[in-house]
Amino acid sequence: MTIAIINGPNLNLLGTREPEIYGKSGFDTYYKVLVDSFPHVSLTYFQSNVEGEIINALHDAAQSADAAILNAAGYTHTSVAIGDAVKAIAIPVIEVHISNIFAREEFRHHSFIAPHAAGVICGLGLDGYRLAVQYLTDTLGR
Amino acid sequence: MTIAIINGPNLNLLGTREPEIYGKSGFDTYYKVLVDSFPHVSLTYFQSNVEGEIINALHDAAQSADAAILNAAGYTHTSVAIGDAVKAIAIPVIEVHISNIFAREEFRHHSFIAPHAAGVICGLGLDGYRLAVQYLTDTLGR
Amino acid sequence: MTIAIINGPNLNLLGTREPEIYGKSGFDTYYKVLVDSFPHVSLTYFQSNVEGEIINALHDAAQSADAAILNAAGYTHTSVAIGDAVKAIAIPVIEVHISNIFAREEFRHHSFIAPHAAGVICGLGLDGYRLAVQYLTDTLGR
Amino acid sequence: MTIAIINGPNLNLLGTREPEIYGKSGFDTYYKVLVDSFPHVSLTYFQSNVEGEIINALHDAAQSADAAILNAAGYTHTSVAIGDAVKAIAIPVIEVHISNIFAREEFRHHSFIAPHAAGVICGLGLDGYRLAVQYLTDTLGR
Amino acid sequence: MTIAIINGPNLNLLGTREPEIYGKSGFDTYYKVLVDSFPHVSLTYFQSNVEGEIINALHDAAQSADAAILNAAGYTHTSVAIGDAVKAIAIPVIEVHISNIFAREEFRHHSFIAPHAAGVICGLGLDGYRLAVQYLTDTLGR
Amino acid sequence: MTIAIINGPNLNLLGTREPEIYGKSGFDTYYKVLVDSFPHVSLTYFQSNVEGEIINALHDAAQSADAAILNAAGYTHTSVAIGDAVKAIAIPVIEVHISNIFAREEFRHHSFIAPHAAGVICGLGLDGYRLAVQYLTDTLGR
Amino acid sequence: MTIAIINGPNLNLLGTREPEIYGKSGFDTYYKVLVDSFPHVSLTYFQSNVEGEIINALHDAAQSADAAILNAAGYTHTSVAIGDAVKAIAIPVIEVHISNIFAREEFRHHSFIAPHAAGVICGLGLDGYRLAVQYLTDTLGR
Amino acid sequence: MTIAIINGPNLNLLGTREPEIYGKSGFDTYYKVLVDSFPHVSLTYFQSNVEGEIINALHDAAQSADAAILNAAGYTHTSVAIGDAVKAIAIPVIEVHISNIFAREEFRHHSFIAPHAAGVICGLGLDGYRLAVQYLTDTLGR
Amino acid sequence: MTIAIINGPNLNLLGTREPEIYGKSGFDTYYKVLVDSFPHVSLTYFQSNVEGEIINALHDAAQSADAAILNAAGYTHTSVAIGDAVKAIAIPVIEVHISNIFAREEFRHHSFIAPHAAGVICGLGLDGYRLAVQYLTDTLGR
Amino acid sequence: MTIAIINGPNLNLLGTREPEIYGKSGFDTYYKVLVDSFPHVSLTYFQSNVEGEIINALHDAAQSADAAILNAAGYTHTSVAIGDAVKAIAIPVIEVHISNIFAREEFRHHSFIAPHAAGVICGLGLDGYRLAVQYLTDTLGR
Amino acid sequence: MTIAIINGPNLNLLGTREPEIYGKSGFDTYYKVLVDSFPHVSLTYFQSNVEGEIINALHDAAQSADAAILNAAGYTHTSVAIGDAVKAIAIPVIEVHISNIFAREEFRHHSFIAPHAAGVICGLGLDGYRLAVQYLTDTLGR
Amino acid sequence: MTIAIINGPNLNLLGTREPEIYGKSGFDTYYKVLVDSFPHVSLTYFQSNVEGEIINALHDAAQSADAAILNAAGYTHTSVAIGDAVKAIAIPVIEVHISNIFAREEFRHHSFIAPHAAGVICGLGLDGYRLAVQYLTDTLGR
Repeated sequence: MTIAIINGPNLNLLGTREPEIYGKSGFDTYYKVLVDSFPHVSLTYFQSNVEGEIINALHDAAQSADAAILNAAGYTHTSVAIGDAVKAIAIPVIEVHISNIFAREEFRHHSFIAPHAAGVICGLGLDGYRLAVQYLTDTLGR
Repeated sequence: MTIAIINGPNLNLLGTREPEIYGKSGFDTYYKVLVDSFPHVSLTYFQSNVEGEIINALHDAAQSADAAILNAAGYTHTSVAIGDAVKAIAIPVIEVHISNIFAREEFRHHSFIAPHAAGVICGLGLDGYRLAVQYLTDTLGR
Repeated sequence: MTIAIINGPNLNLLGTREPEIYGKSGFDTYYKVLVDSFPHVSLTYFQSNVEGEIINALHDAAQSADAAILNAAGYTHTSVAIGDAVKAIAIPVIEVHISNIFAREEFRHHSFIAPHAAGVICGLGLDGYRLAVQYLTDTLGR
Repeated sequence: MTIAIINGPNLNLLGTREPEIYGKSGFDTYYKVLVDSFPHVSLTYFQSNVEGEIINALHDAAQSADAAILNAAGYTHTSVAIGDAVKAIAIPVIEVHISNIFAREEFRHHSFIAPHAAGVICGLGLDGYRLAVQYLTDTLGR
Repeated sequence: MTIAIINGPNLNLLGTREPEIYGKSGFDTYYKVLVDSFPHVSLTYFQSNVEGEIINALHDAAQSADAAILNAAGYTHTSVAIGDAVKAIAIPVIEVHISNIFAREEFRHHSFIAPHAAGVICGLGLDGYRLAVQYLTDTLGR
Repeated sequence: MTIAIINGPNLNLLGTREPEIYGKSGFDTYYKVLVDSFPHVSLTYFQSNVEGEIINALHDAAQSADAAILNAAGYTHTSVAIGDAVKAIAIPVIEVHISNIFAREEFRHHSFIAPHAAGVICGLGLDGYRLAVQYLTDTLGR
Repeated sequence: MTIAIINGPNLNLLGTREPEIYGKSGFDTYYKVLVDSFPHVSLTYFQSNVEGEIINALHDAAQSADAAILNAAGYTHTSVAIGDAVKAIAIPVIEVHISNIFAREEFRHHSFIAPHAAGVICGLGLDGYRLAVQYLTDTLGR
Repeated sequence: MTIAIINGPNLNLLGTREPEIYGKSGFDTYYKVLVDSFPHVSLTYFQSNVEGEIINALHDAAQSADAAILNAAGYTHTSVAIGDAVKAIAIPVIEVHISNIFAREEFRHHSFIAPHAAGVICGLGLDGYRLAVQYLTDTLGR
Repeated sequence: MTIAIINGPNLNLLGTREPEIYGKSGFDTYYKVLVDSFPHVSLTYFQSNVEGEIINALHDAAQSADAAILNAAGYTHTSVAIGDAVKAIAIPVIEVHISNIFAREEFRHHSFIAPHAAGVICGLGLDGYRLAVQYLTDTLGR
Repeated sequence: MTIAIINGPNLNLLGTREPEIYGKSGFDTYYKVLVDSFPHVSLTYFQSNVEGEIINALHDAAQSADAAILNAAGYTHTSVAIGDAVKAIAIPVIEVHISNIFAREEFRHHSFIAPHAAGVICGLGLDGYRLAVQYLTDTLGR
Repeated sequence: MTIAIINGPNLNLLGTREPEIYGKSGFDTYYKVLVDSFPHVSLTYFQSNVEGEIINALHDAAQSADAAILNAAGYTHTSVAIGDAVKAIAIPVIEVHISNIFAREEFRHHSFIAPHAAGVICGLGLDGYRLAVQYLTDTLGR
Repeated sequence: MTIAIINGPNLNLLGTREPEIYGKSGFDTYYKVLVDSFPHVSLTYFQSNVEGEIINALHDAAQSADAAILNAAGYTHTSVAIGDAVKAIAIPVIEVHISNIFAREEFRHHSFIAPHAAGVICGLGLDGYRLAVQYLTDTLGR
């Protein structure tokens, strides 16, 4: 089983930005642990600050993966186009947010992606990715 | 470790209502599987259609449990009082929804509970409870 | 045929409150007349000021009655949970309001119940209940 | 007793439009049954697609009838002028809708007529007209 | 000089409706006084409950009159089409309202006509028409 | 093939109103060119300032024509009833606007007709009618 | 009869500001003509840019005048306090605006004063004051 | 004189919750001081997390007390039903809030109870109850 | 202890305006009673209809008094500047309203002052001032 | 004459996505037909999922083409920047949408591009592009 | 060259209020430095808490100065009248705010002055005044 | 000291677009003057029409520059992601707009960047960049 993890804008700064909140390790470090935790799952990782490249990545995932995990970060709240991409592709997409977006500014409470996602996990930190992978392996393997 | 699972209004109908969507087994059946899956965790379960009794259950959980998993169903979107209860108690609360509330009516997109919850899992069906238990055992055990 | 009549908050005060508007007799007095008017219909009556007990009553009616008549009073405008209950049960529910809610405060113009009700009768006083019973007996008997 | 039934735009298509929903008989057929059901009531019927002619009909009814039953259809939600007419005339007016307007688009949830109507019956199909006639005969005869 | 007075829906009821507010005489009576007060002005009068006929009357006035006085009543607040007609014709149009529309329901505070009218007079009773005629004769005569 | 062209309020003023914008010829002149351009299509033309007559024309077209082209002008933005008529009839309706309504006042950005139209052409001047006829002849002929 | 004319902020600039719109003469020049036009009326004039002084002037007018004409200019749209003053005093107040406030920015379409004014005259230039004086002398003299 | 004090959801946690804000003593401790401070007043105390029980308590107070002091906490902002109860009963009700609800989240700025309350005291801590009792004893004793 | 009482626009009319509501005595009469009731408190009184003078008075009170009681009347709902002044000064300010502003027009439900006030007392008539003084003497004396 | 066709996000999926709606052929296939249909027009085609590349393409078209046809898909509703680009360039731009965006979610009813476009064609499927080309060739050739 | 600096409400407290934010020196101290920094510019300074006096100062500046720098503080967000004054006078006005108003409460994000100002500088502390003076001297000297 | 100037979409058109407004020289010309004006400052310049590349440029600037000047043009009003980037980096960012965005369309009045910027300068033309550089050199040099 192949699962594509796609991260959006500013998530490349993880580990160096506000380490007291997000921890001191970047996503790369976490990703290695994740890969090791699921030896039978083929994970891929992509990050971009460009909205259209995230759409490209979703289109690619629809060809090469069984599911996707998407943290579109700031584009979550403004991108009709990414939401359309999630809707247009056939594989299930889990929306993940590291922080609890509902405890932040009002404009972060709305997601153009969520209506088309299989589900949403937010506020559980980096663990959200792990839970999403586990859910997908459990569910798709049924 | 003790985790209190609290379900809100109409969730007692699970299994008999719209079985093509929610499946044919009630929450009780699922709960037994959940208990078996986490032999080292002490789970408790409470369901009520009365808003105030859910508040009472949260107050009780704050005394007797290490964490709570709350699916407040329809009260999620209207209850300042349950939101205040989640904020007032010291234990972490994970908000779970079986369906993807963001793919439904607009009034279900807002939660008075989410800003005070540790995190939110929605749209992943009954698996959402299992993922929440796993997250809590992993996290609190650290 | 069995029809469950369910009244919501403050309707227990009928007869003593603003008698120049609502008349001098309580709902009990009216209910007796209603029962006598439909000798072939088995009517039941329940009133509660507790939102969750109204949900319980709807769940019960789904088991024991062929239809329900619901005047949720103030909960009409705020209760997603009662609306969900009406949606969740299989029997038809007629929403009745004694006063014309559309001639009152703006917040009374919206009902969380109406989208899931079979129909709405409002502003026709206590006669609304009688017309609802008649409609249900005529329709269900077809 | 004379009761004027006034129907608004597109209701002339009843019977030929979406027969699986509205049935195969036009309003004329139903009207004959209605007339027969109330032998002691003098019913009149008027339909127009023109907003101003509905206002004229309401003015006329105020002179020639004891009450009116009004289904203003699409004008319900946009016509301050028809609402003013209902307010301006002395006879009671019952607002009737065949479908449950509260289960349809949001713009159909607001009525400029309801605040000035004696009451509203909606979602009960053509039976709504019969119940309105019955209510008026019972009430005005008191 | 010719001035066309155009009245909208329900204004034909003036004199019989709420006489304690609007007085006991209809617009016809007032109109005769108006005609007598301005012997050098050629006044015409038209009333209709039909939105489109008011548009027709405005189009006609643009051909046959030097100015128009328009009380569109309920259509004031809903008719883009009448507003467009006022904008489309070259003669000045004074918008008159008998009652103070700003002391009434919120939906009466907006006028689709006012942005295109030469001016607005409201709340001064039937005197509003007289003041409008006087303004037009004074101004156009300059 | 028969196509009914239906124009709404104030469009009878075309050619005399703001000729620098709309050109010097009325719709009649343009209509003759249109008829000549499509010798194999039977075109009919109707214009009215009365909302209800436009509804009547749509009802008639449903009986006598294969498609309709509708420019409801000011009624576009306020008429639930015309929108309902377009929805109720079986023939395809193309919504046409001469000017670009999206470059004008905000209240012109919403159309009650568009959701039920086969498509919308706006801002292309009188050419919009020609393109609509061409689309209909191409499509219906397939 | 005494009538107090009260002008609000920036109206002291009349005559020097945008003379192509407002004319070349200040309010003082117009006021003299006004005084001469109504020899039997005692007019007083007050202008201030200070919101509270306009309130003071209204309080004073309630003691010394039979009516007031108020052009509160920019305060019209923001001053609950001036609105309260107009409501609190017993004499009738006519609200006058030189320009057509409904053809300007949206925030100028709402007036806190209008609900408490006897009536409103706007868009008729300085003539608005003259019409207001005439209305008051005609009406109060009855 | 009898005064009923009714507290709503989560107020049972007072003293253990956020003691640096609300102090270390629960409402029971404060209540004893209150009782001692007004030896000639008969105070009663009721707390519930259940919306309907608060309504019941208000109904009871209407029979057994001369006035009520109500802190509905989170229900203040969402309960039409409690607002209706306050309106329905004849005794005066003072609305009290310990914290300054206007300095908190926007959804706490609206109260369904306030329009029907005799008055509101908020932000003055537990002293709010004492001031309310004093006001009622002073006023009702007059 | 010194407490500054500051009253806003139109409150100088108290006693002569709507005496059936506000009573027949002006604030001066009430103020004398208030002064006598608190012999150990040094009270000062200031009233102005000018928004900026109320700000000046607050600035002065911050130098010369231990606390302030502010009834900003109509400015309560519109004055960011007075709200800023209350926030800028170090002494506690109690916001008082004679009438229940929540039972009046919607625009009176919002206060720019309340978020920065120590507390709010409204709807308790002139007694509100007395309760505020008492609260301040009790609290500041602790 | 040169016309640049620019397609936005997810339109590269045409033909493989929801073929029952959009047909089985991708845009490339359609484009060939289009090129053949207009032998005297030089067409260019560009598609990108990246918002900024669409802006670049518009800038380029302004140099190399006589007109552009733009289907910005999901960016239509969110991109001020693309709207600014359309406004900034001198060539006419026709906005085309394959589906009827007015029959879809509310957020698709607003376009940041339309106010600056020469016109809009929507809901007519791929034919919209052909009609746009035809309009441009007819109009620019005049 | 003469430049008038006009400060609004509460800015007289600068230096004594929240010195850790605003610094320990009042505006007077800063103003002296400013005067010294621009020896060839004639600066004037005015501060008032009264809205109308700020309008007066703007009117005066239009006579006596070449430009104005305006920090209207709290009036920025509520004063149509000051905005009108800025629009009415011929000299350029730079709007300055010491703090970043866009990082504060939502109601501070809107300015009635900005649309009529030459430009806006905010968030740069007292340096904003200096930059404004420099801009004006550079620009007006060209 | 190094300062990165980052320009957003369509700003590459400066000089060729609307030269009567923006002047005839592109940003490059202006940039050379700017570089010459601040010989002791190391300036860098980047422009892109791609949202994500602007984010990349901000990330880079955080590593290589002491401060940034950002004119995000159309992305200012829609990009949560750029706002997040400004918030995430440690160097101060000055937001600059050439035109007065508050005098333009309402959607340009909101900035997702401003709350995280050190300050905002708008409406002062290209001089805004120069003032920003000067502010940064003055401030950071302190």
